[in-house]
Order: sequence, then structure tokens, then C-alpha cells
Amino acid sequence: MTKKTDTNNERGDSQAYLEKKKFFDGMLTVYGRKPVLEALQDKATNIHRLHLADSNKSAEILDDIIKLAEAKGAEILYHNRAALSRISKNSSQDQGVAADLICRGFQTYDDFLANNKGKKFRLLALDGVSNPQNLGMIIRSACAGNIDGILLPQQGSAQIDPLVIKASAGTVFRAPILRCKNLAAALKDFKAENSLVCALSSHANTVLKDFNPQEACVYVLGNETEGVSKEVAQLCNASIRIPMNNGVESLNVAVTAALIAFSV
Amino acid sequence: MTKKTDTNNERGDSQAYLEKKKFFDGMLTVYGRKPVLEALQDKATNIHRLHLADSNKSAEILDDIIKLAEAKGAEILYHNRAALSRISKNSSQDQGVAADLICRGFQTYDDFLANNKGKKFRLLALDGVSNPQNLGMIIRSACAGNIDGILLPQQGSAQIDPLVIKASAGTVFRAPILRCKNLAAALKDFKAENSLVCALSSHANTVLKDFNPQEACVYVLGNETEGVSKEVAQLCNASIRIPMNNGVESLNVAVTAALIAFSV
Repeated sequence: MTKKTDTNNERGDSQAYLEKKKFFDGMLTVYGRKPVLEALQDKATNIHRLHLADSNKSAEILDDIIKLAEAKGAEILYHNRAALSRISKNSSQDQGVAADLICRGFQTYDDFLANNKGKKFRLLALDGVSNPQNLGMIIRSACAGNIDGILLPQQGSAQIDPLVIKASAGTVFRAPILRCKNLAAALKDFKAENSLVCALSSHANTVLKDFNPQEACVYVLGNETEGVSKEVAQLCNASIRIPMNNGVESLNVAVTAALIAFSV
Repeated sequence: MTKKTDTNNERGDSQAYLEKKKFFDGMLTVYGRKPVLEALQDKATNIHRLHLADSNKSAEILDDIIKLAEAKGAEILYHNRAALSRISKNSSQDQGVAADLICRGFQTYDDFLANNKGKKFRLLALDGVSNPQNLGMIIRSACAGNIDGILLPQQGSAQIDPLVIKASAGTVFRAPILRCKNLAAALKDFKAENSLVCALSSHANTVLKDFNPQEACVYVLGNETEGVSKEVAQLCNASIRIPMNNGVESLNVAVTAALIAFSV
């Protein structure tokens, strides 16, 4: 990878900074009482810090959250409302609670690439998937199926929020989620490492069941109404379609993701 | 079929009555301005009657609906608000508009059985699928995939409403939907005609990809949280599961439906 586009390496940062960055890149901040409780109830999740608004009135669910966070060795911090809002980034839905979770499946895409050179991995890349329920369902299916990572851009996609967590049936805490800032930049890095980048497109000649790549492959799923964006489509070096009956023109993006995840 | 459980035949009804019943059984009443407009824009739908509340104020979308209904030869009827509510059965969401659509894919399950004796059809049966978005997605995937009918009970399932129509991306108007009152009764009739009735169950020994029935098969999908009901599970003479990674315990029911629909 000579052309890095999405890391801070070129800043010449210290080893300590990079270690710290890596630690925080592997973290997911969730908010809202029920989502935080369910996250803590999942054996797969570890928690770094629990953040509480000092204005919270006592409630049974808060007691349960604190008990679980303590049992998992979390640091528990109390903030004023404004400070908590800055942490949750969603003051209208955080209900005075946020948690920094350490999710074993979370990493940046460039760490994944560095650790999987020459391997025949299968990834899903999300290009503008904006509906939280679709994102949650994609995560659930990918986690259950044969997918090594979900490339989730910070730009232009739904982000992991309580709706996504719910639709993922909690699998988001263990799913292999590869974060990138900008999808096109990340896909260029995958191509530079000889991955196929394959768009799902109704105009493709090849059908999913006949597509058996011999190299690593990133399957790109587009926005719910627009499909794969022009910028990303131009980067793809393969394309496939799923044949449909009865004149149906498209499948739900989460259904498409599942058919790919379970296609091997 | 000696033991009919879900028809009116035993009442000794006249041929004329049965013809009329069959006509109305093939009809879907939709309501709400946008759902009705989109239904009429679909070339696959025919319309029997358009029902309007006489209290409706003039609106562009109503003009469009009336124009399309006229072009499709519908009878246009005006009602007072109470009468319209009785037709739509949902006064809070009908927005003063309802339409009786003739959907070529709609029929009762016993008509389907009578017309498909000895054929190796593949059906999905929904046992308590209650989320409208799941129902819509199931219809869309089944319609696009290799499914000959969706057995949709009137009891205990989501019914076709505007949310379902939206999630189905309009495919509900052309999908092969087989109506029954009670699922267990209908499944007994399918078994009497030598269909396999196969439950999706995480405890099953056989996995989906190894399951290749030589006869007609009805795949039963259960409720989102409870799975297949006890009453229906006892009727099943096969069961299959979909293997999952990463300790994921279940898939979304619409995803399961899609994996079955596209499994051949």
C-alpha cells in the first residue's frame, strides 16, 4: 500500500499515539438505556467507560446498567447534560446514558488489509446504505453468514445507532465491522492489494451463483433507491446480478446482502 | 381433499354464489392516497371499484387517482365517511380513499391446491409473521425468487396494509398470495394432497442446502420472536435449519424467506 488515503500515518505520529488511536478505533459508543443495557448483557462485549448524566433520576434500569458495567470493570463517569451530549452526539435519544464499548470485531479497514494480505477474504462494502433497519439486518446476516468484514464508511451511510442495534439483534457487538472514512478511497486500497471490487448491478452479465472469484472480493451494495454511486461504480472491476422472476426489478439491499453472505 | 376446513362448499351454496365469492377472494382492498395511486400506476393491477369519501377536498393526487381509475375502467363510488371506514376498515389511515383491486396473483389456497394437483410447487407459509415490514419484504423476495405462492392466514398475521405495500416495493400487486383463514387447517389440506410441510427450526438436523424434496413443499416461517407455533410445528413432517456463524442464533424472518426463495 504505497498510497494511503485514510490513515494518519503520514503525519509521522508517535507509536504511542497510534496505539491509542487503534484502541479508540476499535471502540463503539452506544447510547440510550435499553441499547446500553442489552450491549452489556452480551457476553461478547467489553466496556471501557460508562457515561451517565448527573441529572439522571434513579431508575431500575440504571441500577442494572451500573451493576453490569462494574462487573465488566468499566470506569464510570458522571457528566453534566451538555458534556454527555458531546459524548453521545445524540442528546435527544441518549436518555442520559452512553457507553464506550470494546467490540472485538471492530477495526479500521487498513488494519484489516495489513493483517489479511494474500488471503481470500469476502467483504461487503456499503455505498450509501441509509436506512438503519437495512444496516442492522445486513450486519446480522453478514455476521451469521460467510463474510469476513463489513466495510462501513463514516460518510454517506447510516451509522450505528439504537435502531441499527435493534435490527441487528445485538450482533453488531460481535460483527466484523471495518471502518473507513470514505468508501472510494478504501476501495482503491483494496484494489491496490489485488482484491476484486464487485458491484451488485441489475445490468451485470454474470449472475451471483456463477461468480466464484479466486481472489479476495469486496461486494459493493448501493443505496436503497439509487444503487451504487457513479464514483464507486467506476472503481469496480467486476459486477454481478441476481436473476429475478415476475418482472421484479430489485431486491431489498439487506436481502441482497444475505444472498451474498450465504452464497458459499 | 375430503376434509375441507376452510371453504363454504359444505353450505351447499349455489354456483353463482361461488363465482361471486371467487371474484371477491381475488380482490385486495387498499387504502390511503399514495398506496392507491401507486397501485393504479402498476400495469399489473386492475381495479374493480374506487371508493372516495364525499368529504374529500380537491387535491392533485385525488385527480390523478380518479384519472387512472377511469382509464382502467373502474366504477367510482362516493360514500359518507362512516361508509368509507367500513370499506377500508382503517378510518385513521384511509385518507378518504380505498380501492378494490383485482390482483392476478391472489387466490384462495384451496383453489391453488385444486389447480396444482401432483405438481412440485414450492410455497412459503407464514405462521404469525406480525411485522408489516417483514411481510412486505417476504412478498418482494418470494415474488422475485422461486416460490409459487405465499400462504397468508387471515388469523394471527400482519395483513396487507400501506406499510406492507411499501416494504414490498409494489410487488404485492403481482405476487402469488394464497389466502387462508387458519394456517393449521390449510396445512392439513396440503398434507392430505401429499405436500411436505417443512418447518424452519434452529434445532433441525437437515440444513437448507441439503434439502431437496422430490414432492411439493410448504416451508413454514414462524413468528419473529416465538418461531413456529406449537400447533403448526406438530403438523410439520420435515424441518430444516440454516447454519450460522459467530454464535448468531437466528436470522430475520424476511432474510430466511429470501434464502429459501433463492435456494434453487
